[in-house]
Amino acid sequence: MMNAKGTRDLDPSAMIIREKIISILTKQFKRYGFMPLETPVIERFDVLASKYAGGAEILKEVFQLSDQGNRELALRYDLTVPMCRYVGMNPTLKMPFKRYQMGPIFRDGPIKLGRYREFWQCDADIVGSKTMRCEVELLSLALSAYKQLELPVVIRVNNRKLLNGLLEDLEVPSDKHVDVMLSLDKLEKMGRSVVENELVSKGISEENSKELIDILLNKTIDDLNLESEEGKQGIEELKEIRDMIPSEDVEIDLSLSRGLAYYTGTVFEAFLKESKIKSAISGGGRYDSMIPSFLQSKREYPAVGISFGLEVIYDAINEIKTDVLPSATDVFVISIQEDKKAFELAQKVRELGFNVETDLIGRSISKNLAYCNQKKIPYAIILGPDEVKNKEFKLRDLTTGTENCLKSENELQKIISR
Amino acid sequence: MMNAKGTRDLDPSAMIIREKIISILTKQFKRYGFMPLETPVIERFDVLASKYAGGAEILKEVFQLSDQGNRELALRYDLTVPMCRYVGMNPTLKMPFKRYQMGPIFRDGPIKLGRYREFWQCDADIVGSKTMRCEVELLSLALSAYKQLELPVVIRVNNRKLLNGLLEDLEVPSDKHVDVMLSLDKLEKMGRSVVENELVSKGISEENSKELIDILLNKTIDDLNLESEEGKQGIEELKEIRDMIPSEDVEIDLSLSRGLAYYTGTVFEAFLKESKIKSAISGGGRYDSMIPSFLQSKREYPAVGISFGLEVIYDAINEIKTDVLPSATDVFVISIQEDKKAFELAQKVRELGFNVETDLIGRSISKNLAYCNQKKIPYAIILGPDEVKNKEFKLRDLTTGTENCLKSENELQKIISR
Repeated sequence: MMNAKGTRDLDPSAMIIREKIISILTKQFKRYGFMPLETPVIERFDVLASKYAGGAEILKEVFQLSDQGNRELALRYDLTVPMCRYVGMNPTLKMPFKRYQMGPIFRDGPIKLGRYREFWQCDADIVGSKTMRCEVELLSLALSAYKQLELPVVIRVNNRKLLNGLLEDLEVPSDKHVDVMLSLDKLEKMGRSVVENELVSKGISEENSKELIDILLNKTIDDLNLESEEGKQGIEELKEIRDMIPSEDVEIDLSLSRGLAYYTGTVFEAFLKESKIKSAISGGGRYDSMIPSFLQSKREYPAVGISFGLEVIYDAINEIKTDVLPSATDVFVISIQEDKKAFELAQKVRELGFNVETDLIGRSISKNLAYCNQKKIPYAIILGPDEVKNKEFKLRDLTTGTENCLKSENELQKIISR
Repeated sequence: MMNAKGTRDLDPSAMIIREKIISILTKQFKRYGFMPLETPVIERFDVLASKYAGGAEILKEVFQLSDQGNRELALRYDLTVPMCRYVGMNPTLKMPFKRYQMGPIFRDGPIKLGRYREFWQCDADIVGSKTMRCEVELLSLALSAYKQLELPVVIRVNNRKLLNGLLEDLEVPSDKHVDVMLSLDKLEKMGRSVVENELVSKGISEENSKELIDILLNKTIDDLNLESEEGKQGIEELKEIRDMIPSEDVEIDLSLSRGLAYYTGTVFEAFLKESKIKSAISGGGRYDSMIPSFLQSKREYPAVGISFGLEVIYDAINEIKTDVLPSATDVFVISIQEDKKAFELAQKVRELGFNVETDLIGRSISKNLAYCNQKKIPYAIILGPDEVKNKEFKLRDLTTGTENCLKSENELQKIISR
């Protein structure tokens, strides 16, 4: 008996943290007017393999399968392409279309530490608006979410138009721009000399490569002068965002470019301020031309989105919270030959809003108390013939060991602090 | 652009109802001390194809796939077999192990109206206890959940030991018992004569078939006298459940048998009281020998579980609630040349706990109000230069059309009833 390679089970202690993360993200998505959408795990292979979908690299990692009608199918590798399919299939959707979706995605790639073949993404996207108000909302949403999650982050922001303009000024041919940006994405991880060499190997002159990286690492948007119209627009867009969100936790970083070809404007990534985890814990950007190309539509579908990585957020929370999580169960009911009365009492306590477990096996009191201890259940109710006769029950605080005789379940509410 | 056959997208209006169902079930599972477990969508084929897993019929409907290492994999067809694998892989799990899991399962079967190849199950199971207390908890949990969901149900309960005992008394050979029960499962749907014929074709005498069905349809456990020990035990178990749950909504129904081979004791199904939906909307039972056989273990793993069908509960709620659901958004903020102030106000209103949308496109007031109307958003805030000058904002109730000038976002809380 074992798991498929690259997959794993999430046990209750992990799931309690994950459910908390999902619940915080859901709440924040709704605060900003995003609505839930669910697309299936299984998609048609031709949809995922479309030229303007995820690209050739990701297609190598697609899990393929077929149905009894021999149709070519595949497991989704992200939540963005299925959303684009949904937008294409629903031409009367009201714009802006703001949706969130959380669920597993699948990539048949190499397995490194912490990388799985089945993992969750939590995405929020806005389709149908070109204004920077969208970016401002997504960044504010991310800041609120990380505040709720008690994870201090800084979000770095840049703009592909600015990068395009800079490359244009340096007379880098426009058909090389995307390729250059994919190299620039490695600056932080691989270091400047690796990226310079890569740029040279891609046909950029040594001088230009050096100058480009010098500018990106040392200039700010306030001392950057670009000739090209596109570059100027990129600077304006970044300034608009900065003006709307004066938070210290949003930083403009000219060296940020992100590793996906389809971004057309703003790009951003969130990083933990104090953590061993150096990789981005969420990221996103604007992709105004992807959906029209994907749908082969002449209609405009400007879009911008953010993706939260559930696994890395989970790791970050685990890094901080080393204390054992309390049980989800508040009270454990132990019956001494009074099963029916004990069950009725358990039901009443549940109706008060407490999570209640009862002894399902018929163990001794000491074994039941040992079980409570192992599961960190804070309170036990003990009910035997004496208690039933006196119309009362014992409540034991398992942290302090103190015991109270209570006459009614309503008295519980005063004692059990939740 | 289309969906894979047998799959579909769930749009926001459907998802809001589904999220509500999931949230009610989650709360009830926790009330009864169940903890979340998540197993992956992808499993090893050999695990799902194991002799004591789902059986030959279900195996025909398994989606198979492989990874880059040519390992034989499959998509899970239920949540029970993966849980059994998890129990086998974690021999130190504390008993009773009570877990819930909700997620998509996959069956490559024929597509009828309302049947999909990817659909959700919501399961709660208890492993490690033989007592009827478990059944009592699962049935109470189901009654509470349906009460919360505002769906009146009746739960029919029977016992495989009782059926075995009855067949033993009728001298039906024990190797035919399971087969007979799978036929009896069709009584309600196909009618008595179809089932009688099927029993005869399975080698049961015509006389026995008639007598068996006569008893099942006409007798109660109080006037049923069985010779066999197993049958007597089945009757005792049913009486124990009846004694513990005196609810009118739990009925003993001797003709219930359920369509799965692995049940060993209690079986039950929930039906809607007043509905066009005649099929069961949840079901479950006790399967004390499945896990040990599946794990080829000599250890005892008694188990009992319940499975809620998310799709059919969704259909049932949709049948009742014909009114348009309110938007998840409480307030829409419209700015007249005051984008930054409007954004700041929106943030403050969000911090008060309201769900807020803003105009992301820069439309006219009338277009924004039309959008609110279409999306059933109940309130709009209007903020222009006059309001900013007077340090106030307009709040329009979009249902009544009345407008108020407010000085502070805190005044909102008095007006917006949620």
